[in-house]
Amino acid sequence: MGPDPAVAAVRLAVRSALGPLPPGSLVLAACSGGADSLALAGALAFEAPRSGRPAGAVTIDHGLQDGSDVRADTVVRTLAGLGLDPVGSIAVSVGTHGGVENAARNARYDALDGAAGRLKASAVLLGHTRDDQAETVLLGLARGSGARSLSGMPSSFTRPAGDDGASVSYLRPLLDIDRVTMRRACLAMGLEPWDDPHNDDPSYARVRVRHEALPALEKALGPGIAEALARTARMLRDDADVLDDLAERAYAELADLEGTGADTGTDTGSDTGSDVFVGIRLDGLGDLPRAVRTRVLRMAAVRAGSPPGTLAAVHVDAVDRLVTAWHGQRHVDLPGGLRAFRRYGRLLFGPA
Amino acid sequence: MGPDPAVAAVRLAVRSALGPLPPGSLVLAACSGGADSLALAGALAFEAPRSGRPAGAVTIDHGLQDGSDVRADTVVRTLAGLGLDPVGSIAVSVGTHGGVENAARNARYDALDGAAGRLKASAVLLGHTRDDQAETVLLGLARGSGARSLSGMPSSFTRPAGDDGASVSYLRPLLDIDRVTMRRACLAMGLEPWDDPHNDDPSYARVRVRHEALPALEKALGPGIAEALARTARMLRDDADVLDDLAERAYAELADLEGTGADTGTDTGSDTGSDVFVGIRLDGLGDLPRAVRTRVLRMAAVRAGSPPGTLAAVHVDAVDRLVTAWHGQRHVDLPGGLRAFRRYGRLLFGPA
Repeated sequence: MGPDPAVAAVRLAVRSALGPLPPGSLVLAACSGGADSLALAGALAFEAPRSGRPAGAVTIDHGLQDGSDVRADTVVRTLAGLGLDPVGSIAVSVGTHGGVENAARNARYDALDGAAGRLKASAVLLGHTRDDQAETVLLGLARGSGARSLSGMPSSFTRPAGDDGASVSYLRPLLDIDRVTMRRACLAMGLEPWDDPHNDDPSYARVRVRHEALPALEKALGPGIAEALARTARMLRDDADVLDDLAERAYAELADLEGTGADTGTDTGSDTGSDVFVGIRLDGLGDLPRAVRTRVLRMAAVRAGSPPGTLAAVHVDAVDRLVTAWHGQRHVDLPGGLRAFRRYGRLLFGPA
Repeated sequence: MGPDPAVAAVRLAVRSALGPLPPGSLVLAACSGGADSLALAGALAFEAPRSGRPAGAVTIDHGLQDGSDVRADTVVRTLAGLGLDPVGSIAVSVGTHGGVENAARNARYDALDGAAGRLKASAVLLGHTRDDQAETVLLGLARGSGARSLSGMPSSFTRPAGDDGASVSYLRPLLDIDRVTMRRACLAMGLEPWDDPHNDDPSYARVRVRHEALPALEKALGPGIAEALARTARMLRDDADVLDDLAERAYAELADLEGTGADTGTDTGSDTGSDVFVGIRLDGLGDLPRAVRTRVLRMAAVRAGSPPGTLAAVHVDAVDRLVTAWHGQRHVDLPGGLRAFRRYGRLLFGPA
C-alpha cells in the first residue's frame, strides 16, 4: 500500500523541486509550524535522503506573540523528530516600517538568507500553496496595475546572500497544491500543525480575502476559483516577462538622454534631492504598441527618480497622452517631485 | 449653473465617443430602458445635435417576459420624448443554443446589426459601465485562461453588417463611469429607468458576481475594486494584443506544414470530420519565450481543428511539455479528436 494520496502529492512536488539542485547539497525548509510548511518539512525529510541530499529546517521566531519562543522550540523539536539536520530557530526583531506584515516578512527573509548563507544551502523551500497564490492574486487586484501585480508569487527566486556576492535560491514547490491537501498530509504523517491566530485576524487584508472574498467568488463562479487564479498568475507572469523584456529593449534604443543636472551644468532650480533627468525620442515612442510604450514610460519615470510604489497607472496614462493625444499640455506632474514634458523632439522626465 | 455632475460625466463620455465619427452621420443608442442605457440615450440626444449629427435609438424586445412588448413601447415613447429620431423597437426570438443569456445576446446583436445597416448608422452606442466591465473580468477569472479572458469588453468593436461586406461599429463610451452615476444622471434628467427583474435573479452568474462577489471583494480589499478591475482589463487587453501579434508572426515563420490528408494523399484513418494537419518547426519553438510559445501552440491546435472554447490551458501546457520537457511522451490528446506529437523535427497537430 502506497502513502496517503495527500502525502504522495506533497512528496512528488518536493521531489520535482529537488531534481535540478546540485547533488549532495544541503536543502532547507522554512517552517512556521503551520500545516503547509510542516507537511513541506515532512516531505523534504522523506525525499532528500532518497536523492542523496542532506536536509535541514529553520523556523523564525518573530517575537510578535507571547510565548513565541516556546512555540519555536516546539517546532524545532518536531523538525528534529522528522530526521532533519540541522534544525534551528532564529529570533528576529520586527520593526513597523511599511506595516507589521511587511516588516515581519523582511526580517524573516533576512534571517533565512543568513541561515542559508552560513550553512551553504543550495535552496530554501517555502510552503506557499495554491490558496496562498490565489489570495496574492486577489490582493494584487486591488492595486490594479496590470499583469505584474496579478502575477502572484514566483515559483523560484533568488536573493543576495551577503557581502561576498553569493545568492540564496528560494523555491515554492507547493503552488499547485491546495491547503486542504497540506492539512490532510500532516494528519497522515502524524504531524500536528499549529494554527497561528493571526491567520484568523480580520484586520489583515489577506485574512479577509481568504475567509470572505474567495468563498464569495467561489459561490458566484463555481468551484475551482483558487486553481483558476493560480493558473492566471502563472500565465500573466509569463506575459509580463515578455513585455518587460520588449520594453527594456525599446528603452535602450529610445532613451538617448540620461544624466544629472550637475553633469550638464544645468541649474534645474529643483527643491527635490534628485536632479536626474531622462529623455526619450518621441518619434520612436509613438510607433510602439501601447502595452510596451506605457512600460517604457514607467521605466523612464522610475529611472528619473519617481518611486515605483507610488507611480500609478493613472500617472503613466497621463504621460502617455503627452505622446498620443498631445494638444498643448504643458507637463504632467509625477510622484517624487518630477514632471514629464515634451521638448527637443523628446519626452523629458526630470525635477519639477 | 451647469448640469448635474453625473449628467455632465455621461455627456462628456458620449461627446468623446462621437468625436471621431464621420460628421453628419447617424448615431444609434441601444437602449433596454434600464438606467445605464437610458442615461446614455439622454446624453446622446443632447450631444448629437451639438456635433451636427442625427441620433436615434433602438430597443430590443427579447420576448422573454410577459408584457415585454408593452415595455418596449414605453421605452420607445421615452426615447422619442428625448428628441431621438428614428426610434423603434425590434422583436427578436431567442433560442436556447449556448444558454438563454448567450442566445439573447446573439439575437440582440443580430437585430442591432440589421437596424444599423438599414439606417446606415456610423455607430451603435452601448451602455456598459465600469461595473459591467468589473463583472465581466471576474466572470473571465473563472475561465482562468490568461490575459485575454481577463481583458473584459473592448471599448469599440465591429461586426459584419450583412451580405454587402459592410460592417457595423459598436462603441462603449461608459466603461469608465460607474452604475451609481448612471442612475443619478437618469434622476437629474427626469428619466425613469426600468429595473429588469433578471438583474436580481441569482440563477445568473453575473448577478451573483454583482451582488455577492464584488461586495465581498470590496469589503476585503477596500473601495475602488471595480475601478481596479476595469483598469486591469484595459491593460491586459493591450498586453494580449502585443502577445497575440508576436505569436502570429512566430506562427507564420515556424508553421511550415499545413494541409489536409487528402492534399497529400495520406490516409489518416481518422474517424473525425477534420483531416487538417499543421506542423511547426521544433528548433524555432524552443527559442520562443513561454508566453509566445504557448500562444503559437494554441493557434496550431485551433488551426488543425481543436475547438477554441474547449481547448484549455491544461491541454496547451501538456503540448508545451512535448517541446520543453520531452522524455519520450508519444502524444498529447486534444479536444476535437486531435493529437499533437513530435516527428520530422516538427510538432505535428492532426487527427488522432
